[in-house]
Amino acid sequence: MIIDMSAKVFARGGYHATGITELCVANDLGKGALYHYIGSKEELLAAIHDRVMDEVMFGANRVAERGGTPSQQLAMLGDELLDVIHLYPDHVWVFLHEFPALTGERAAQFRERRRMYERRVEAVLQAGVDTGEFRELDPRLTTMAWLGMHNYTYLWLKSGGRLSARDVAKPFAEIFMRGIATPTSKDDE
Amino acid sequence: MIIDMSAKVFARGGYHATGITELCVANDLGKGALYHYIGSKEELLAAIHDRVMDEVMFGANRVAERGGTPSQQLAMLGDELLDVIHLYPDHVWVFLHEFPALTGERAAQFRERRRMYERRVEAVLQAGVDTGEFRELDPRLTTMAWLGMHNYTYLWLKSGGRLSARDVAKPFAEIFMRGIATPTSKDDE
Repeated sequence: MIIDMSAKVFARGGYHATGITELCVANDLGKGALYHYIGSKEELLAAIHDRVMDEVMFGANRVAERGGTPSQQLAMLGDELLDVIHLYPDHVWVFLHEFPALTGERAAQFRERRRMYERRVEAVLQAGVDTGEFRELDPRLTTMAWLGMHNYTYLWLKSGGRLSARDVAKPFAEIFMRGIATPTSKDDE
Repeated sequence: MIIDMSAKVFARGGYHATGITELCVANDLGKGALYHYIGSKEELLAAIHDRVMDEVMFGANRVAERGGTPSQQLAMLGDELLDVIHLYPDHVWVFLHEFPALTGERAAQFRERRRMYERRVEAVLQAGVDTGEFRELDPRLTTMAWLGMHNYTYLWLKSGGRLSARDVAKPFAEIFMRGIATPTSKDDE
């Protein structure tokens, strides 16, 4: 698929440094055909971003449908996010590195989709505070801490490597969940 | 300074897409003078990486000299790391995005320095496990969780923004420290 192959090319050489000719070779298409399918290089970049956001939002929707406590929801969100990072290393690399190359409407749409996902995480955190499961916390900052912990695995969590996504998701969830749990009275000095 | 100005140029346009001519203009130097000072574009990239690693290791050394419990050490490491990210946004952007462009000896040196810092964090975690302050944990995975949480702030923690590095370091330390603390018997089911 053009999007997947191009994600690989961009991840290796960088978006700006990759020419249309290179994309044609990688996709085994002539210039005319490539432009017919993708419109422009930036549209291709936007499609890669959408691909990542689609997967991430599908995961978030699955989690919401499954229900459960805020702790369970947060753990499942972590599983789903690490699955995407693990399965789409090139797309995620391009997503995290090349988003400043999106312009105008495409940049605005990307920010909006990204923000939408962050709000899902924030809502789960807030729900946990409301039920008393989580201690009083800043949902926005805590979301950024959680996202950083998970997203940053794109640098070292390799498909086919020693660790599976679950091997990482479980201890990460344990750190995070204990970190935001409402302290028992004994902890609470 | 050439390194700082070039970090800005690379952060904006990407390393591969930035030509020597652009670097000359930004630094207000002729080609001959630029090559005299920097040797090659890749040497400049290595110098930016070194700049970040120097600051990060200076911080880690300050923390080691100050002493304190493993919890205090880890909190101070977080303060120092966020200070670097907050003070050197362009350098850190280039550091995290363009390291694959380093080759040969320079790539090996970069990996070694990065690993050296990670080992500092791992050692503090292991010390906390040994003293019983931290629960049994995988020091390597826990280091990567900690690093991710802190490093990822480069995407949103802005110099001159609403939040200072300390505003972020404090709640992050609280999440992480509670997350790895040895549970009190009441928690320990």
